[in-house]
Amino acid sequence: MKQEITLLDVTLRDGSHSMRHAFTEEQVRQVARGFEQAGVKYFEVSHGDGLGGSSLQYGFSTVDELKLIEAASEECKNANISVLILPGIGLKEDMEDAKRAGAKMVRVATHVTEADVAKQHIHLGRNLGLKTVGFLMMAHMAPTATLVQQAKLFESYGAEIVYVTDSAGALLPHEVKEKVSALKENLSCEVGFHAHNNLSLAMANSMAAVEAGATYIDGSLRCLGAGSGNTQTEVMVAVFERLGYESGIKLFPIMDVANEVVAKFMPRPQEITGSSLMMGYSGVYSSFLLFTQEAAKRYNVDERDILLQLGKMQAVGGQEDLIYEVARELVAKNVITK
Amino acid sequence: MKQEITLLDVTLRDGSHSMRHAFTEEQVRQVARGFEQAGVKYFEVSHGDGLGGSSLQYGFSTVDELKLIEAASEECKNANISVLILPGIGLKEDMEDAKRAGAKMVRVATHVTEADVAKQHIHLGRNLGLKTVGFLMMAHMAPTATLVQQAKLFESYGAEIVYVTDSAGALLPHEVKEKVSALKENLSCEVGFHAHNNLSLAMANSMAAVEAGATYIDGSLRCLGAGSGNTQTEVMVAVFERLGYESGIKLFPIMDVANEVVAKFMPRPQEITGSSLMMGYSGVYSSFLLFTQEAAKRYNVDERDILLQLGKMQAVGGQEDLIYEVARELVAKNVITK
Repeated sequence: MKQEITLLDVTLRDGSHSMRHAFTEEQVRQVARGFEQAGVKYFEVSHGDGLGGSSLQYGFSTVDELKLIEAASEECKNANISVLILPGIGLKEDMEDAKRAGAKMVRVATHVTEADVAKQHIHLGRNLGLKTVGFLMMAHMAPTATLVQQAKLFESYGAEIVYVTDSAGALLPHEVKEKVSALKENLSCEVGFHAHNNLSLAMANSMAAVEAGATYIDGSLRCLGAGSGNTQTEVMVAVFERLGYESGIKLFPIMDVANEVVAKFMPRPQEITGSSLMMGYSGVYSSFLLFTQEAAKRYNVDERDILLQLGKMQAVGGQEDLIYEVARELVAKNVITK
Repeated sequence: MKQEITLLDVTLRDGSHSMRHAFTEEQVRQVARGFEQAGVKYFEVSHGDGLGGSSLQYGFSTVDELKLIEAASEECKNANISVLILPGIGLKEDMEDAKRAGAKMVRVATHVTEADVAKQHIHLGRNLGLKTVGFLMMAHMAPTATLVQQAKLFESYGAEIVYVTDSAGALLPHEVKEKVSALKENLSCEVGFHAHNNLSLAMANSMAAVEAGATYIDGSLRCLGAGSGNTQTEVMVAVFERLGYESGIKLFPIMDVANEVVAKFMPRPQEITGSSLMMGYSGVYSSFLLFTQEAAKRYNVDERDILLQLGKMQAVGGQEDLIYEVARELVAKNVITK
């Protein structure tokens, strides 16, 4: 019997970053209809930074995400809608609203070392009858032992699936294998994997995750997602079929959504630019990029040297002040590469 | 000691397809200067279809390739220029001209089952004192035993390196591993690998090739190449460094050529479109695409069904007549999917 894998599409959530959070209701309906026809089981609809992300800090959504969730839900009979929530950005009320709008799954996302902030959200997800998922972001920043410990926390709260989330696209296939295998060995729940393509390894890493026992794999159509985007869903359907896995998704219909719908509204193709390569190579998250470019300009240093140093220091979101400090140190050390 | 890998960049040859063979002398000089600075050992300059490819059938070059080879050569002290030749398209005189223009390596390319047509070209390459390479295209179309037999022919003619060339981007990593390993076991010469990214596996396949013993790996900047392009050279430099291989190429300088030079003149980003995905999935070469689209339109069938059927029939270049036959059969069988 073929191994069954659930491909969860995040075009309408991670893709929100690339769309500057400007998805229209009609775009969402078209994509949702396509997913329904192609046999997609789960797809995510939310602001790129999760429920409640629409804000000055993260960018305002053009259309309220609840309206988009509702619209997507109206188009689907068999496909289920997932929502993402980052405790601290989204409120518990947002989860209740999302459930009323038609969501069937919630993924509660925290930094890889901070699963403990998600306890109440996981409880609420289960109480609402949603399929409830723990989502460990920036997974490359923690040793595997820590990752396992954090995943166990998620499981103890009631998560039915725990994800290894390679937010910076920094993991190599053998690292994905090690992390997913460790979770499979130490948890009873299912394991998922979310890739970014910064090192051109999204497909390789997704394959490595499945080989190691992951049963949920994220993807996005035409890679539409933050940075250089995610594993390309329609390509993954083809590759997984060739590898003998069963995703239940029909190839030509999913290609049609990718190429006839998404490709036509995406503002630009997802490439591996210099910035996205540096994110994957240094392991620094994208929120640092803009500040790094400013600091590089002000101090006349190469932004890539700043990113490398931030990566070595394991800088995390919120520590953006570090950037100017690093730039000044580079000047002091005469690392003027530009 | 770190394992040494030679990354051979094909931007100025495979990229010629994406540029409609319109490279200017200035573009070539800029890229060549960048390669020299970054520490690239070999890069290829030729028409996309190899020496002599400039023609009505394959597309005329805007600037004579010999002039481009000469220009590239003038910019380089340590970087060496490779040329590609397909016997039947390029003449032996073209090789002599290329040598005079500054080429240091020649890669003689044949269909995976036709190495025997390359005997005289390999001899000539060696006689001219060029580093001489056999390049087995559409490697997915032959069982590994046949590939080995053909590679041995190349070796017996005097090839110093034999390449497994995944022209259609159709191979999966375990298949690459099998093919490269078999060549390593059965040949004394070095083994190379050339990927295309149709299934989003160019990087994964390049890694698999190196793990199996390949020492020459092709790439192109920003993936500039036929179809969905090649393994992205500057990303590969980063990934291979992380994996502990030694390419001798400096990351920031190679990124600069990719992002400050090539990205600025490439006509469009290299994406995995529907057509390129179908090429990789069906294993059919790109020369069939245009005819297939025409036939699909005329008979009102899905071009993808035609491609799948051609793939099953192992159609090869020159058999374009088959396309209309297949389309008519699909109509007869009522496979009208559009």
